[in-house]
Amino acid sequence: MRLHRSRGRAQAGATLLEGPHLVGAAIDAGHRLGTVFATSGDAVGTELARRGGAELLAVDDRTLQRLGTTEAPQSPIAVMAVPTDQPPPGGRVIVAWGLADPGNCGTLIRIAAAFGYGFLAGPGSAELWSPKVLRAAAGAHFTLRLGRVDTLEAVRAGGRTIVATVARGGMAPGTLPASAAILVGNEAHGLAAEIVSAADMRVTIPTSGAVESLNAAVAGAIVAYLGVAGPGTNLSAS
Amino acid sequence: MRLHRSRGRAQAGATLLEGPHLVGAAIDAGHRLGTVFATSGDAVGTELARRGGAELLAVDDRTLQRLGTTEAPQSPIAVMAVPTDQPPPGGRVIVAWGLADPGNCGTLIRIAAAFGYGFLAGPGSAELWSPKVLRAAAGAHFTLRLGRVDTLEAVRAGGRTIVATVARGGMAPGTLPASAAILVGNEAHGLAAEIVSAADMRVTIPTSGAVESLNAAVAGAIVAYLGVAGPGTNLSAS
Repeated sequence: MRLHRSRGRAQAGATLLEGPHLVGAAIDAGHRLGTVFATSGDAVGTELARRGGAELLAVDDRTLQRLGTTEAPQSPIAVMAVPTDQPPPGGRVIVAWGLADPGNCGTLIRIAAAFGYGFLAGPGSAELWSPKVLRAAAGAHFTLRLGRVDTLEAVRAGGRTIVATVARGGMAPGTLPASAAILVGNEAHGLAAEIVSAADMRVTIPTSGAVESLNAAVAGAIVAYLGVAGPGTNLSAS
Repeated sequence: MRLHRSRGRAQAGATLLEGPHLVGAAIDAGHRLGTVFATSGDAVGTELARRGGAELLAVDDRTLQRLGTTEAPQSPIAVMAVPTDQPPPGGRVIVAWGLADPGNCGTLIRIAAAFGYGFLAGPGSAELWSPKVLRAAAGAHFTLRLGRVDTLEAVRAGGRTIVATVARGGMAPGTLPASAAILVGNEAHGLAAEIVSAADMRVTIPTSGAVESLNAAVAGAIVAYLGVAGPGTNLSAS
């Protein structure tokens, strides 16, 4: 339960994986697990512990509930050492820059994996390997390279083009250079002015004006998809 | 606090708005509020109650905490009668079909408003006016027409083209007919096979294959954006 808290995870260098999907994805990706906690009737959890070469501890429903970080945690729950930071050295990336919400960060990691990007977490962004971020990313952590980054200069490494997503004043989204770094800013405040002006390109998703802005992860998803997909097809004619 | 629960809201015909942004959006849209609860130091909340012609009750932080549905609720909190269902009679809509998660439903309502769509909640979808859905939609409820719908035939009303979003086998997303109804299915299971085969078009967002599927709201956002935006611009040449 120390691993429920950021400080506890930092001290232990470990995090919690909850549910058969995440635990299975970690094992498939070759990660070694520590203890696996499974309810006694959970055959899938038992098999996952065996397959992962991990210590299995049978627990009752009430203990599982206390070990999990959601209201209704799914068995099994596994302890995993937080992997070494692996910021992708070049190529397309999505960069969370001051994006504090774990759900948004996890959703962006899933989007990055879906569209062939790496992922970087900049200053002020959520903890990459927290249970909430892992849950929102639905296993995507195990399919791409990701790591933390402290400066815009580090994002530029490998000759990347910095693309700032902004609520107004940017170009419409479209195909991006193969070395694009898409910066997604804070949920409430967006990207800081100095980051926007230091960027190589600014992209704004045109909206009807009925809402102030799009959800940060949604905006990142549209820019990232169009970045690799090129012009859309006209389905009207079909 | 009865309004924290779905049943309580149904019995009272009312819901809770939390925080100055949502309360202000409701007043701006002409909704009459019931009681407004504000902490004594909250000048904005006091002014909102006056502007909304609502009864103001000063509460302490602890009471506000109990009235709110989040861990750290923001003052003011207002009671509002749930508006009459107003399913848009024609034109573009996004349709949540078995989309159970309130956060996903609210995000889709925000997306619908941003791109000029109406919104329909089909069978098995989250309650349109729950505090969680209101929070995720960030005020978008007050800027579009939305309502519940029970059958695919009702979605077709006004000559709509049914566009099913599917994880595989559909066309790439692109410009949609002006009367498109974009169906977004359940988070875990997608749309039921009979709904997919009854649709007029099936759309799949091409992904790298590294993840099993996209988040439902993210998929809906990309299809909805391209539906109105047409082909993207090529930013590589800029």
